[in-house]
Formats: sequence, structure tokens, C-alpha cells
Amino acid sequence: MGLHPDRLFPADERTRAIAREIHQRTTDLPLVSPHGHVDPRLMSQNRPFPDPARLFVVPDHYLTRMLYSQGVTPDELGVPSVKGEPSEVDGRTIWRRFAEHYHLFRGTPSKMWLDYTFAEVFGIYKQLGADTADEFYDHLSARLTEPAYRPRALFDRFNIEVLATTESPIDSLEPHAALEAIPTANGRRWGGRGGKVITTFRPDNLVEPDWPGWKERVEQLGEITGEDTSTFDGFLAALRKRRQDFIAAGATTTDHGNRTALTFDDPAKAAEIFHKALKGDLEGREHRLLPAHMLVEFARMSVEDGLVMQLHPGSERNHNQWLYEGWGRDVGGDIPDATNYTWALKPLLDAFGNNPRFKIVLYTLDETVFSREIAPLAGGYSSVFIGAPWWFLDSPEGMRRFREAVHETAGFYNTAGFVDDTRAFCSIPARHDVARRVDAAYLARLVAEHRMTESEAAEVAVDLAYNLPRKIYGLGPHPSPRPTDSLRSSFPKPE
Amino acid sequence: MGLHPDRLFPADERTRAIAREIHQRTTDLPLVSPHGHVDPRLMSQNRPFPDPARLFVVPDHYLTRMLYSQGVTPDELGVPSVKGEPSEVDGRTIWRRFAEHYHLFRGTPSKMWLDYTFAEVFGIYKQLGADTADEFYDHLSARLTEPAYRPRALFDRFNIEVLATTESPIDSLEPHAALEAIPTANGRRWGGRGGKVITTFRPDNLVEPDWPGWKERVEQLGEITGEDTSTFDGFLAALRKRRQDFIAAGATTTDHGNRTALTFDDPAKAAEIFHKALKGDLEGREHRLLPAHMLVEFARMSVEDGLVMQLHPGSERNHNQWLYEGWGRDVGGDIPDATNYTWALKPLLDAFGNNPRFKIVLYTLDETVFSREIAPLAGGYSSVFIGAPWWFLDSPEGMRRFREAVHETAGFYNTAGFVDDTRAFCSIPARHDVARRVDAAYLARLVAEHRMTESEAAEVAVDLAYNLPRKIYGLGPHPSPRPTDSLRSSFPKPE
Amino acid sequence: MGLHPDRLFPADERTRAIAREIHQRTTDLPLVSPHGHVDPRLMSQNRPFPDPARLFVVPDHYLTRMLYSQGVTPDELGVPSVKGEPSEVDGRTIWRRFAEHYHLFRGTPSKMWLDYTFAEVFGIYKQLGADTADEFYDHLSARLTEPAYRPRALFDRFNIEVLATTESPIDSLEPHAALEAIPTANGRRWGGRGGKVITTFRPDNLVEPDWPGWKERVEQLGEITGEDTSTFDGFLAALRKRRQDFIAAGATTTDHGNRTALTFDDPAKAAEIFHKALKGDLEGREHRLLPAHMLVEFARMSVEDGLVMQLHPGSERNHNQWLYEGWGRDVGGDIPDATNYTWALKPLLDAFGNNPRFKIVLYTLDETVFSREIAPLAGGYSSVFIGAPWWFLDSPEGMRRFREAVHETAGFYNTAGFVDDTRAFCSIPARHDVARRVDAAYLARLVAEHRMTESEAAEVAVDLAYNLPRKIYGLGPHPSPRPTDSLRSSFPKPE
Repeated sequence: MGLHPDRLFPADERTRAIAREIHQRTTDLPLVSPHGHVDPRLMSQNRPFPDPARLFVVPDHYLTRMLYSQGVTPDELGVPSVKGEPSEVDGRTIWRRFAEHYHLFRGTPSKMWLDYTFAEVFGIYKQLGADTADEFYDHLSARLTEPAYRPRALFDRFNIEVLATTESPIDSLEPHAALEAIPTANGRRWGGRGGKVITTFRPDNLVEPDWPGWKERVEQLGEITGEDTSTFDGFLAALRKRRQDFIAAGATTTDHGNRTALTFDDPAKAAEIFHKALKGDLEGREHRLLPAHMLVEFARMSVEDGLVMQLHPGSERNHNQWLYEGWGRDVGGDIPDATNYTWALKPLLDAFGNNPRFKIVLYTLDETVFSREIAPLAGGYSSVFIGAPWWFLDSPEGMRRFREAVHETAGFYNTAGFVDDTRAFCSIPARHDVARRVDAAYLARLVAEHRMTESEAAEVAVDLAYNLPRKIYGLGPHPSPRPTDSLRSSFPKPE
Repeated sequence: MGLHPDRLFPADERTRAIAREIHQRTTDLPLVSPHGHVDPRLMSQNRPFPDPARLFVVPDHYLTRMLYSQGVTPDELGVPSVKGEPSEVDGRTIWRRFAEHYHLFRGTPSKMWLDYTFAEVFGIYKQLGADTADEFYDHLSARLTEPAYRPRALFDRFNIEVLATTESPIDSLEPHAALEAIPTANGRRWGGRGGKVITTFRPDNLVEPDWPGWKERVEQLGEITGEDTSTFDGFLAALRKRRQDFIAAGATTTDHGNRTALTFDDPAKAAEIFHKALKGDLEGREHRLLPAHMLVEFARMSVEDGLVMQLHPGSERNHNQWLYEGWGRDVGGDIPDATNYTWALKPLLDAFGNNPRFKIVLYTLDETVFSREIAPLAGGYSSVFIGAPWWFLDSPEGMRRFREAVHETAGFYNTAGFVDDTRAFCSIPARHDVARRVDAAYLARLVAEHRMTESEAAEVAVDLAYNLPRKIYGLGPHPSPRPTDSLRSSFPKPE
Repeated sequence: MGLHPDRLFPADERTRAIAREIHQRTTDLPLVSPHGHVDPRLMSQNRPFPDPARLFVVPDHYLTRMLYSQGVTPDELGVPSVKGEPSEVDGRTIWRRFAEHYHLFRGTPSKMWLDYTFAEVFGIYKQLGADTADEFYDHLSARLTEPAYRPRALFDRFNIEVLATTESPIDSLEPHAALEAIPTANGRRWGGRGGKVITTFRPDNLVEPDWPGWKERVEQLGEITGEDTSTFDGFLAALRKRRQDFIAAGATTTDHGNRTALTFDDPAKAAEIFHKALKGDLEGREHRLLPAHMLVEFARMSVEDGLVMQLHPGSERNHNQWLYEGWGRDVGGDIPDATNYTWALKPLLDAFGNNPRFKIVLYTLDETVFSREIAPLAGGYSSVFIGAPWWFLDSPEGMRRFREAVHETAGFYNTAGFVDDTRAFCSIPARHDVARRVDAAYLARLVAEHRMTESEAAEVAVDLAYNLPRKIYGLGPHPSPRPTDSLRSSFPKPE
């Protein structure tokens, strides 16, 4: 079973032909990945990937949550228990279980990404199922031993131009230093400023006082930076200092997964709450005010140091208590909730929303805000941009609804372009492929309905796929020979 | 005017051809109706239906509310007044009023269901209107006197495999006993466990202390069961006992139309509130806590006795005060409101969401939760399934948006299949016809866009129409020669 | 570049052919504009329009907000500063800046309206851009000096049948009197009852006590009407009296842009709050209760005097504080927020929702309420009608989603028809053109899917474009030779 060259294009013949033309313009563009969660050691160590089950199934909570929703438990899938309970260790057994249930994923993005990866990356042109499980396992296992399937070889083969990982301020940036030290004959360096692999400053675990171990992490930040983080000023100074380290490791953005988009701008009150939090004395609403205030502090730092802010609130973390207790965080137990932006962001936008030195990219899991809040905000504040549809919405239907809901109010040029947001390195090309096709399909409809010319649509497609993410995530001018020139010359240059 | 064989299929020729193929696979499948509101006496007594107005117009609040919204009052339509005010009694007059306003229903599901029923059930191939009102009335009246139009004859002609009615714990189950007693030469019995007509346990009027007459109904429950329902333990014991009676009358599910999805798990507090409620002493939030706690109690009972829970919150009952005062409940005066599931259900899911013996089907009138809450919950808890789009959303556009919003996150196999949810017995085939066509159309688009193969889509169509409702509503293995085998063999068998 | 005759029609050839047929039925219908914000002096003075920049760019906040969102500041665009800061005065410079950024509007309604206006009104068949900016400017400037481009000449050329402006009770109605005094040889008068240009009663700045200058405006209302507006009864009497003046100036509707849809029916409490507000003593929730109560008072007045009420809540005014401080109100700084109708409107609907003498048209910026609240309300109360998708939703995709979300529950006949809602006089034909095409496209899909016959769809299209706005906004029987008869004869006549 090969991939159909017209996949994800509209069925109508005329529109499909237009979609093909538009999409064609983007197929050779490098992949820009300014927001993701690949482990940087994968790249710095460049070891072979483990077996197929551990590569594809065990760490992918899109897959394990769907299987679990139909009764296949995490330990049957080899997800490591935080309580030390036994879990399946045999890769082939896990793979077979997965393959037997592959029909559950019919029509889902997970299946689309996997089918692409099996075919385009690993050269398997069959349908996974109980009957082909072993054949897939053997084929994949064999490939994974080859040098061409080492992470850095795949990185280049995938035509990735830049990949951002995500680190906490207390994480080591050593893998990025190691990447920077890799000798390069010609071309760009693997790590550091302007490198192929860069970091992202994600301070969530330092600003949520309810997250177990918060106080210890604040102390650790002090040790790393030599600042006295037992005071609020010292805490801020430490974060500022650490941002410089991240910038040296290539960071151009920060990333914030606050529970809500609430912001709050009162440094004196924030200092008071910070000190109460260190003493474990927070009451009621104060638990939410420290992260809310810290968003404003991080915006202030962004104005100073130029890092672009990313905010993706609205996920109720660890909603599934049983999963959390048994298998910990990030195993598919988070559930979205309604999320306000209009009111919640006002304090931050009052302070910085019109500041030419500030940029914030808003994501959401609550698609009701696309047309109601996020598009009007991005179309009315110079600092606000719209992030790609995220997580549960990172899907063909989700992306289509996203474009339909935001573009008429905010245009295409207030959207930040696609981000793959993935831990699953091998799925990166598949995810960009889906996004480029869905955008081509949407633009083709506008052309077919005479709402845009084909040449306008082709330019927009290139901007969405390449120029806008480079510009809005602060990646600067093209590092490689310019693949395209479609962003209008009148367009303000990135700072 | 006949029904077009391609109705509800996409206009695009290629996609339409695929939709026809997919739909063809479902046309001979029996109708499974695990959630509905047909009066069981209709079946047990098997009397002829009344005149066309009383069959089609008077009891159908989809119709009377639309007519009322354009100024035709309930008494002009013969809806019985609760105050004893006079209302139209002449069936033909009511029918003519309805026919004159039939254009109001253009493009609505109500019109689609009626046109189907007129054509396919009654053999009238014209357009209803002022000019044809009498012709319809005479034709329909004549048919209704024929034995072939008695309820049980239609039931078999409609190819209904199983039809669930809905009763309160204080309702008599005598009609179901009478159905069970009907002699059958061969084939299945009409009533009782595994029968053609089964009941559903719906305790709403026993758990909402604000519903007039609540205390008396609680006492009545005590009389029926011989339990002391003046204590909370006795109340629970009575409900448990009554569930066994319902199970004997064929019930496989319970049904809960709480105002919100709020759940609350504190038996001691609940007992205290129950006692205050009996004394009429509830204050503030306590009014909502008894129904909220009872959801958790019913979940606990479901784990014990295996009944599948159904929850459909979010309707503000009797919003139209004037309609309620004049014509009572269920006459079209309810209005939906925003409804939370993520937070509201957490206590119930903490207790039972991962219990392999528990199943809950969630419905909503607030389509914003499809992608944001319900699909993530169903795709992340083994106990949660997604109910069909309900009431105002039980329409071609509503069903399409439903599939588009949930399938990419929860897949098809966490959706429970179509339920017709109707009081209008004659509309049952029409409603299933619409659902099967809309699902075929959606699947055809996925095939045309190369997101699924045609054989996968055909299997999914059969599963949605037949296998999933049987499995998820606890109806067990096929009672009749198996019409299909498309649920994957690896699929867990219903308990 | 001419306008494509099939613009906005579906790409599928069969559906497109149907859309053409349906649309054809509406192309000669006069434009009915019962809700808009054109300055009446434009019509009464009938002076030439200013230069192209001041006609098209400076006053259109759809344009200035998008440009600002990409860093072009209001003063660079000549938007007058409220602080007296210098701003660009050269029309050609402003125009060039706009033209250079015209790509930002690709695929947006703003661009569609402008391209239509350039082509159909001004005869320019090119694409605006940096290279053609001067050519456009010169061409437009030349046209604007011609008598055929004076406002009243355009009014007739646009085939506008009636245009409602919007005035506050303290505004002068002198422009409307002047219009009424214009001699007409034959045909209808320009102003006054039944005139071509009528007014609308919009009391927002008299009911929001937090709006700066509120108390002074209440006093001014007293002076205008000779009532003692220092008492609540006098305030209400003054408003009643003023409504009569508005009715004499042609008004058939009132317009209410409350922050929320909250209503509240307690005259004694309202009087108390009104007096506290005059003293500047409002506390907490009281700030919101005066406007909430006034909605019920205005409904009461509507029952008396027959004015149709329009309510469009949900906009957080002046969200962008920096814009507001620098350039004042209505410059693109408002942002929508989630808005409740089900609960919020209940007091008003309890009082008047079933009153045959009352009509209220509901608009929203929160599209989640279309299917959940507004369609069920309009389909269940005789007084409630659904307003056209408004502002950010007045776009092809917004209109399509609107139809898809409301029509199956409320039908087409509870929707009030299109309103252009614009300050931009020259864009009126363009906006109606888009609306008629999008409705034709939607209806064509229903026909292509065999959910409606083509003749039904053609009737509905005419009703949506012409008959429904005349009926629901109280404009009465056709003033000109009846262009069509498609509203069913059984349809209740407008009072």
C-alpha cells in the first residue's frame, strides 16, 4: 500500500488540481520546527533507535491512550510504571498488541503519520495489522541497525532546517553544547546560536508552586545561576541569567503551558505570593496568581532579550488520576477545558501588547476561541500571533476548522505557521506533510471559489510552510540559500 | 415526489459513488434502538394509531415548537392544556394548520423524517402543503385502519431488532411483562431479557429534589420495593432492587438527564442532603448536590449489576415559562446551555473511569465539548464512550460536525452508534436512514481524500450502524443470525 | 482583473450550476438595509466623498486594525489622535501604505468588499498593490468629483430600497428631517416614515452608567424632551417620548449593544440603582444591572410602540487600552468574549417572549451559541428571531457556519435576513452581494444533496434577501412595485 499522491486533497477534480499545484510549491522547502519535544541527547549521542515498539508505541501517548481507551492497559504496552509494577518488556509482544488494534486508529492523524513513516522513511508499503505485525517488526528492526537510520542521518534526510527542543531552566544544556562541538566541514553547526538543533526556554516547573518539588527546583535554579532564589528578585535575576544561557544554546523562544491564560501584573503582590509559596502558605486563588504574574514577568524579559513567547494553556494536567498514579505525567491523561483569552490576557496585553519589541504566539485546545478571541486579538494587537492547532486539534479536520475560523479575521499573516510539537522524531516529516497538504487544500478551495488567485495562494502556501515560522519564531533570515522569496518585500523584517 | 436514492450524499460525483457503496453495506442491517421514548403500551396493546394529526403533529414537540415560533399556538395545534383550557380537537383542522406551514421546515430533519415516513411507510409520494393537506389526511387515515399499520406489524416491517423504552423506577413494568407473555411460534420474545422491546432505568424524577412531587415519589418507591426510603440507605437499596426488576424486563442501560454533568462523591454528605431534602430544608448549592452525588451512586450500582450508564445533561428544562404553565413538560420549551464535562465528571471518573466493569455513554447539546472534552475523555478513559449527537444536534449537519469533531481524537470505536431517541415510533426507520447516510457520506469523504481505504470504511459503517450499539449498550452477541462480522475479532467481547 | 461571475459558489460543477440558478433569482432585488451606521448627513448634505484614503481606509477599522496588527500604526494611517498627536495627513501617502500591505487581506471579506467596490462601483479592474497604488488613487479621485458619485446618486444606483442609520436619543434628528424635506417628483421621499433613509433608536450611551459623560447625557435627554430625567420615571418617560420622535423619523427598530445579554426585571430595584448611579454610588454588580434592567424596559416600550428590538452583546469594548487612549472608540480595539443567552435572557423572555406584539432579533459574536442557544430560542419563542452573523462573523465562512448551525433547528424563517451593519456606504452593494452568494451556495448544497427542491431553495433565497428583513424589521409591505411574492401567503403579515 503506497501513499496516494493526492491524499488530503479535496475530492472535487477542479479543486484537487489546484491543490496539487499549490502543494507542489512547498514540497521542496526545508522543514522548520520551532516548537517540539525531541530529546536533544537523541541528536547529540546519535545512537541507533531502540526496537520498533520502544520507538513508535511506548513513548507515544496518542497511541497508548487510544489503546487504553479500549481496554489495553499501559503495562500491557510496556509503559514504565512509576510504582515499579511489572510491565511488558518484550518489544515484539507490545508491537503485536498494537498491530492487532490498529483498526482503532482508522482515519486518525496518528495512523496517517505512522503510515507515512512506515512508507516514506522505512520503505514498508503494506497495511499494519495482526497478520503483518511480525513482518513490520522484523523489517523495522533491520532498518534501525543501519547507519542511515541514525538520528542525525535522518535529520538531514528529512530536510530539517532547524529543530527546537524544550528544556526547563534547571535542565542541563550540555547536549546542546555537545551538538555545537560537532565538527562540520561546511554548512551549519549542529548546535548553538543559529544551529540546526536549538533549545527553548520552558519554565513551567518553576512557576507552578503546586507541582511537587517546586521549592527544591527553585533552590536548584539558585545553585545553577549563583543567584539567591529565596527572594523574588533573585528568582527573577536567576531566570534572566538562565535565559542568556538558553540564547547561547540557540533559543529564540520561550514556552509556557500554564493551566489557564490568566495574567496578572502586580510585582509587589507577586513577590509576596512567591515568599508565601516558599513557606507553603498559599491560600485559595494565590495558587493561580504566581503563574499568572510570571507570564507578565516573562513578557517583560522578552522585551529585554528578544525571546518570542509561546503560550498554550487550557490543559487539565493528569486528569486521569489512575494513570497519573500508576504511570506518571505525559502518558495521555490530560484533558482540555474551556479557556478564556479575552479577559485573561488583558493585563499582559495592557503592558506589552502594543510593544514593537514583543511577540507572543497563542495556542489553544479550545477551538471555540479561534474565531471569538484569538483571531480578533491577533488581528488587533501588533504583538499577538496565532499558533498552529495544537495536540488534539493537530489533525486534518482540526487544521481545516482552524483556517476557516481565523483567516477571515486575522488573515494568513498573523498565523505563525506549522509546528510539529512532537516527541516522536521519526514522525516529523509526516506531520509537516499533513499540514502542508491541508493548507494547500484550504487555499485551493479559496481559489476554486474565486476568493483568491492561484498565484496569491501559492505565495501564501510558501509563507505558511516556511517564511512565517522563520519570521515569527525569531529565526531570522534564511540560513541556507534562500529557497523562496514569497514574503512580500514590504513585509517588516524580523528584528 | 419520491425520495432520491442519493439523498444526503455529497454532490461530488466521485465521493457520491463511494458513499453509495459504503451505504449499501448497511441497508439490510436490522435497526438497533437502545435509547428511545416510545410508550411500551403502544407495543403491548398493539392498537391502531389515532388520526394523522394525533400521530404526527400533536405529540411531536420538534413540530409544535417550530410552528409556535412562528405564532401558531399550542392550542391551535391540539396540544392538551394542563389548565384545562380548550384546545383544537378536530384532527383535520390541526393537520391543515400544520400543512399550511410546512414550508417552515424546509431543509430541517423534521421534514426529512416526515417525507421519508410519508413515502416509505405510507406510500405517499407527494409534497405536503395547503393544497394536498386533505389528500394526505385521507390517505393516512385509511392506512392507519389496516392491520399492517398496527405497531407490532410495523415493528417487524421496520426490521427493528431491539427497541428500548424508558421508564422511571416508579413506573409499572406491566407493559413489558405483557409483551413477554405474548406467544411466539419461533424467533425471539417480544419482551423481557433479550426481548425485542426492553426497558431502560431512568431515575431522574427520583433524584431531582426540586421536581414537584419528589418526596411523594420517594415514598412510592418505598411502597413498590418494600424498602424504607425515608433513609438514604433504604433509598439506595430500593433503587438497587428496582434495577433488578428492570433487568428482568430486559434493561441493559440506565439513562440520566441531569441538569448538569456535575458529580460528587461523598456518601455521608449525600445522606445528609437527602434527609434535608425530605424535610424541604435544602439550601443553595445543596439542590444540585443530590443529583450530582446520585450519579456516582448509580455508577457504583452499574459496576455491580452491569447496566451501562447514559448521561445527557445540559438542557435547561421548561425555559419557556408560559409554555410550561400552559401545556406542561416536554412540549418544546427546553433550551440548552453551556455544559462542562472535564471538571464536572472528574469525581465520577476518579472512582470508576478506569474500572473494566463500568461503561458510561456521554451525550451533549453543547457541541463545543465534542472536540474539547468528550472526545479526549472517551479517548483516554476505558469506561467512557460517546453518544450520538442528540436532539437539536440529531440532524445531518449536526452529525457531520460531530464526526468531524470527535473521530480524529477518539476514533470511531469509542462512539456508541446511532440512537433515535424518539417518542415518534413511525419515524424510527427515517432517523436511522438519515444517520446511516450521513455516516456513509462522511466516510466517503475520508476515502475520497485517501485517508482511509474503501474496505475499511465499509467495515466502520457496519460497526457504527450495528455492532457498536449492540456492544456498547450491553446488548450482547447478535440475537439473530449474524448479519455481519465486521467488528475485528481482536475486539473485546461485550461482558 | 474582473470579478468572477461564480465567485463564492461551490467548486463542484453540479452544485455550482444550482447555485447560479438560485442566485439569479435574487440579483435584481432591491437592497434592504435595516441595520447600519452610515452617517445620515452623508445623505442629507450629499457632498462629494473626500479623497480615496479618507473614504476607504481611515474610517474603516476592519482595515486599520489588520494593518496595525502587522505594525503599521494608526497615525501612519491618518487615524485622528484623541490626544492631538500628529498623524499622517497626506491621502496619497496613506493610500500607498495601505496598498503596499494589501496582501495581508488575501482571502478576507475586507478584500472581497473592496475588490467588488473598485470594480463594480468605480470601474477599476486591476489588483491593488504597491505598483498600482497611484493608478488607483488617481482613478478613484477623479471619479469622486463626478456627480454620479455623490451619495444620493450612488444610493439609487445601488438599488437601495431603505437604509437605516443609527442615532442616540440625544442625537439630533435634523439630518432625517432635511432628508424628508427633499422634494421628490414621484416615488418615495428620502426621509421620514416609510422614507428611503430612516433612523434607529440606539440608547447605549444612556444606559451604561460607566460610560464617561453618562450623567450629562441623561440631563441632556431631559432638556431635549422636557422631562425630569433626574427621576427614573422621568428618564423612562423621556425615552418613550424620544422614541416617538424616532418613529416620526422613520425608525422601525431599536438597537442595543450591551456588554452582555443579561436582563433583569425589577423596576423598583432599577429605580434605586438609577438614582445611585446619578450620585456616582454604584457598587459591584449594580454597574451591570442598570443596562440589564433597561433591556426589559425597552422591551416593554416595544410592546407599546411596535419598535422591533435588536440586541448584539458580547463585545468587550476598548480592550486595546493603548488604541483607546490614543485614538478613542471604534478604531478596532474591541474583542469578543463568551456570551450567554439562555440564562441571561430568561427574565426578558419570561415577560415578553410569548407576546405577539413583541419582536427581538438576537446577534452574536460568539458562534458557539448559534446551535446551542440562539437557534433553540428562536425556534421555541414566537418573539425571537436570529440576526445575521455580525462583525467578525460577517464573512463567507462565518455565514456558512451560521446557516449550518441554525437552520436545522430554527428553519430559515426565524432568521432575520442580511444586514450590512456598515459605516462604509460604498461597501453596501458588495456586502449584500457576498451574503446573497453565500446563501445561494448553502441552499445549492441542500438541493444537490436532495434535502430541498430547487424551487423551494429559490423561494427561500428571495425570502432571505428581501422578504424576511422587510417583515422582521417591521418595514411593512413592499413600498415599491412588489419584486416578488415568495413569502408564503399563509405567512402572517407584518403588523
